[in-house]
Amino acid sequence: MASYKLLLLPGDGIGTEVMGEVSRLIDWVNDSGAATIETETDLVGGCAYDDHGEAISDATMKTALEADAVMLGAVGGPKWDGVAYDKRPEAGLLRLRKDLELFANLRPAICYPALADASSLKRELVDGLDIMIVRELTGGVYFGEPKEIIDLGGGQKRAVDTQVYETYEIERIARVAFDLARKRGNLVHSAEKRNVMKTGVLWNEVVTQVHKADFADVKLEHILADNCAMQLVRAPKQFDVIVTDNLFGDVLSDEAAMATGSLGMLPSASLGATDDKGMRRAMYEPVHGSAPDIAGKGAANPIATIASFAMCLRYSFDMGETADRIERPIADVLDQGLRTGDIRQAGCKTVGTREMGDAILKAL
Amino acid sequence: MASYKLLLLPGDGIGTEVMGEVSRLIDWVNDSGAATIETETDLVGGCAYDDHGEAISDATMKTALEADAVMLGAVGGPKWDGVAYDKRPEAGLLRLRKDLELFANLRPAICYPALADASSLKRELVDGLDIMIVRELTGGVYFGEPKEIIDLGGGQKRAVDTQVYETYEIERIARVAFDLARKRGNLVHSAEKRNVMKTGVLWNEVVTQVHKADFADVKLEHILADNCAMQLVRAPKQFDVIVTDNLFGDVLSDEAAMATGSLGMLPSASLGATDDKGMRRAMYEPVHGSAPDIAGKGAANPIATIASFAMCLRYSFDMGETADRIERPIADVLDQGLRTGDIRQAGCKTVGTREMGDAILKAL
Ligand SMILES: CC(C)[C@H](C(=O)O)[C@@H](O)C(=O)O
Ligand SMILES: CC(C)[C@H](C(=O)O)[C@@H](O)C(=O)O
Repeated sequence: MASYKLLLLPGDGIGTEVMGEVSRLIDWVNDSGAATIETETDLVGGCAYDDHGEAISDATMKTALEADAVMLGAVGGPKWDGVAYDKRPEAGLLRLRKDLELFANLRPAICYPALADASSLKRELVDGLDIMIVRELTGGVYFGEPKEIIDLGGGQKRAVDTQVYETYEIERIARVAFDLARKRGNLVHSAEKRNVMKTGVLWNEVVTQVHKADFADVKLEHILADNCAMQLVRAPKQFDVIVTDNLFGDVLSDEAAMATGSLGMLPSASLGATDDKGMRRAMYEPVHGSAPDIAGKGAANPIATIASFAMCLRYSFDMGETADRIERPIADVLDQGLRTGDIRQAGCKTVGTREMGDAILKAL
Repeated sequence: MASYKLLLLPGDGIGTEVMGEVSRLIDWVNDSGAATIETETDLVGGCAYDDHGEAISDATMKTALEADAVMLGAVGGPKWDGVAYDKRPEAGLLRLRKDLELFANLRPAICYPALADASSLKRELVDGLDIMIVRELTGGVYFGEPKEIIDLGGGQKRAVDTQVYETYEIERIARVAFDLARKRGNLVHSAEKRNVMKTGVLWNEVVTQVHKADFADVKLEHILADNCAMQLVRAPKQFDVIVTDNLFGDVLSDEAAMATGSLGMLPSASLGATDDKGMRRAMYEPVHGSAPDIAGKGAANPIATIASFAMCLRYSFDMGETADRIERPIADVLDQGLRTGDIRQAGCKTVGTREMGDAILKAL
């Protein structure tokens, strides 16, 4: 029987609560005999800082590098607003992405039919919506140097961030996007600001080359990032796959996720390159954040994290069937009218994290 | 009688058509005897490049520097996709902003009541919406150096953009935002990515200082830019004034404008500092772009540009009353059921640019 090492990093805020429901699903997988998933649980983010003064320790990084996959909850919260920049909760997440070389962040923006009315967009604009945002995750303004604040004296400071992209970074993320599009709607929108940014010019050029050389069968559209932000509000269904850089991906994927009305439902995968043995580093996490306002109340929606675990089974553990078995009940419990607070709906029953987990386990 | 010099730069695409309607309004102002507005019309953007090989000439820049205000239509279009980076249409617009030192870009996102149903957001979320986005316009990644593409050999290139902000740049735009908030809902959201960007850290710090020192009576909220993109979709009415940097301002203001359902109606003002004589450089333009797909068809909505002219009268020519007289008919013609194609609505009459201009002139 196949055996996998999975590192659980619940993180901060509602992270612990939603990850708790995943732990129960792991027990279920292990009991079912489909595979053996060995887990280790560790700290990242604000809780790691509180424990030992760093957002992630070298020891935890070592475990992450040795694991077959990582499941992350969420990091951050106002509690750590005053913490030094390089020790803030987000630094742990960014180090994981960078050191695991997880350059491809896949963020589906799907509208669950039962939730179409929960969107702030008109029902007909989001019903059936299914976008995949492919965000570059290890480059751009997140990691470019110099990145500093210089004291100029006289009360003046100068802050600098640097957005850098090299050809190979754009090439590999473009390939991921085109590959995905082939299995979906065969359409890729590449979003940048080539009219203002040199990285946008190179982005446009490289995506065009990759397309021409190897993916001419996929339809490619170039779109300015500001226009993309507009179109995601105006008519999101025009999109299939959107490929974009780290910063635009951050903003546009959040906008798209919120537009679906299903934010608390959306999983994500961050993937590295595939090595000679067919292995690929990966981290899975919900699209939503640590939601400090509802943390500790048992009110968080665990579905995004459960769906992230299903993605982990499918992409990292080659257990597509078991993933299906977990994803089906998600739609079922929604159809039964169960809702957590974030997707509260008239005529439906509002439940907590644990009750939602119970219902999904029962439906399995 | 007061006399003003106004430079008209219609630009590309629908720019010429919408500016045509403003010219008629200028005649009306001059005939009314309220003031004398002397206009000069010149080239910017793709049409300037076609004419003399630059997106804006030094001579035009000189006229702009000497004018009391500038009215701009729109620049750009696929026709100039192949043009060298420093000669592309947008370079003309960026040079105007930079050389006129127009650091404060005011972009109202208002939902005209008659158009609440035209929004892709649910009516109750946008009806009565009135946000003012204050975008920093002469700094950030738009102008920071280095900004280059380096050939690394072996088919590899490296592209670099640099986001730079100094204390004084953040301070002056924060003041504009707080000042405006005092005359409106008394609430400012400052949007940045302090969890990832050093410019975000400084932005946050300086806005906080300015607030504490001089605007403690205004409510200030800090919001991460990605969360802001979400909240603009989820519940846009929670905002009053949003102050943000050049790039986030570009994306967030477009998103907000589209959410109102009134994109073709929205004006904007770009303002410089006020000098000793109380004068302040200014440029006014519609929020929408050059819309190459409908250019030349006489179908464009002239209202955003007409409303921009009203802003020009109010802020640059101290003619608030005349501005009122122009703004009122805009609501009137909408109430009469006239619509251009972009705001087409069942039960309303779809008209072209000229007819819409006629109706507004008639209502004056
Ligand atoms: C927490 C933060 C550093 C992170 C990001 O900006 O990438 C988050 O917003 C995300 O989208 O995963
Ligand atoms: C045309 C372009 C350079 C410009 C910008 O990016 O600022 C436009 O999108 C805008 O928002 O005014």
